[in-house]
Amino acid sequence: MELLKALEWRYATKKMNGQKIQEDKLNRILEATRLTPSSYGLTPYKVIVVEDQKLKEELQGAAYGQTQLVDSSVVLVFATWDDISNEDVDMYIDEISKQRNISSDMLGEFSDMIKGTIANMTQEQKVMWAQKQAYIGLGFALTASAIEEVDSTPMEGFNPVSVDNILGLNELKLKSVVLLPLGYRDSNNDYLSSMKKVRWDNDKFFIRK
Amino acid sequence: MELLKALEWRYATKKMNGQKIQEDKLNRILEATRLTPSSYGLTPYKVIVVEDQKLKEELQGAAYGQTQLVDSSVVLVFATWDDISNEDVDMYIDEISKQRNISSDMLGEFSDMIKGTIANMTQEQKVMWAQKQAYIGLGFALTASAIEEVDSTPMEGFNPVSVDNILGLNELKLKSVVLLPLGYRDSNNDYLSSMKKVRWDNDKFFIRK
Repeated sequence: MELLKALEWRYATKKMNGQKIQEDKLNRILEATRLTPSSYGLTPYKVIVVEDQKLKEELQGAAYGQTQLVDSSVVLVFATWDDISNEDVDMYIDEISKQRNISSDMLGEFSDMIKGTIANMTQEQKVMWAQKQAYIGLGFALTASAIEEVDSTPMEGFNPVSVDNILGLNELKLKSVVLLPLGYRDSNNDYLSSMKKVRWDNDKFFIRK
Repeated sequence: MELLKALEWRYATKKMNGQKIQEDKLNRILEATRLTPSSYGLTPYKVIVVEDQKLKEELQGAAYGQTQLVDSSVVLVFATWDDISNEDVDMYIDEISKQRNISSDMLGEFSDMIKGTIANMTQEQKVMWAQKQAYIGLGFALTASAIEEVDSTPMEGFNPVSVDNILGLNELKLKSVVLLPLGYRDSNNDYLSSMKKVRWDNDKFFIRK
């Protein structure tokens, strides 16, 4: 679907119908998410793609019983690295070196710049920085889903400690930050599906200079 | 341009050529940004649309001389509300009431829910929450720009105090969080324009469950 039409069409779906997303559609949504830019390109988060119904039920238990978690086709869980270390930067530099086929020595200055930035951050600032990058990814996943005519419900209302336990994220040194069930609206049982979308008007949202 | 092709095409442009963006293209990018979802739909940020060249020069001075700020066609400045108060929630509820043509009394429960959420947040948590919402908007602006074949450079490297002063954001109770110059690449003078995009491979970015 054309972008603006798709963004008008999408809404935070309250009730999904259990229908599965075609694999090629899901793959395009995931690829758009993977292509998300981030500060230095470091991308200090991963995306857990949960299709297992039993896990989705457990996630529902950790998220105030929200039914989209079980009636969706798949739940994307955005989870940030729980720390950003020099070793992580080295791994990233190796990845650039491999993908661009250049020696990592050529990337010393870039590596030092990233390491300098993280050395100047408190633990809390690192968490915030990583979360913000993950939210750009959330934005990409949301626009891609809308274009594919797949419904979505971004969710901040959940217990992150429980979600981390359910998905074994502690061992992976990851922390869940936002959930995104993807699936299809059950229009007959979703009071929101026919409601007008509310956004601030242009003159309340933009300031022209 | 088709989404995935557009996301492959885009990159954090290092050198822009000063060319103006057609008004209809810019309007579509802004509209996509305005349609960005956020927690409760509250959207606790605004977007300053800077086309004035003198202001863009001042922004450059507050952002380590990054040339994209002056060689872009327009700079979007995402700026969060510096507080989220009950009065802000009331204003939002009025807006819903107006746009959906329902009485605000019908929205009492929703209003209380939002007020309850913000009452439970520290000032720092409110800031973080608002910033994360703004970053979803950044994601929408980035995908929309790519689809319109407009180049973009998300920028976190700037002095927010200076930017707030330059744009008079203090009086508006706003705080700048991220800049997004939009324009066109100067391919001959941008070493990055021909470089392979680096992202974590699927198996390093996704975890399948």
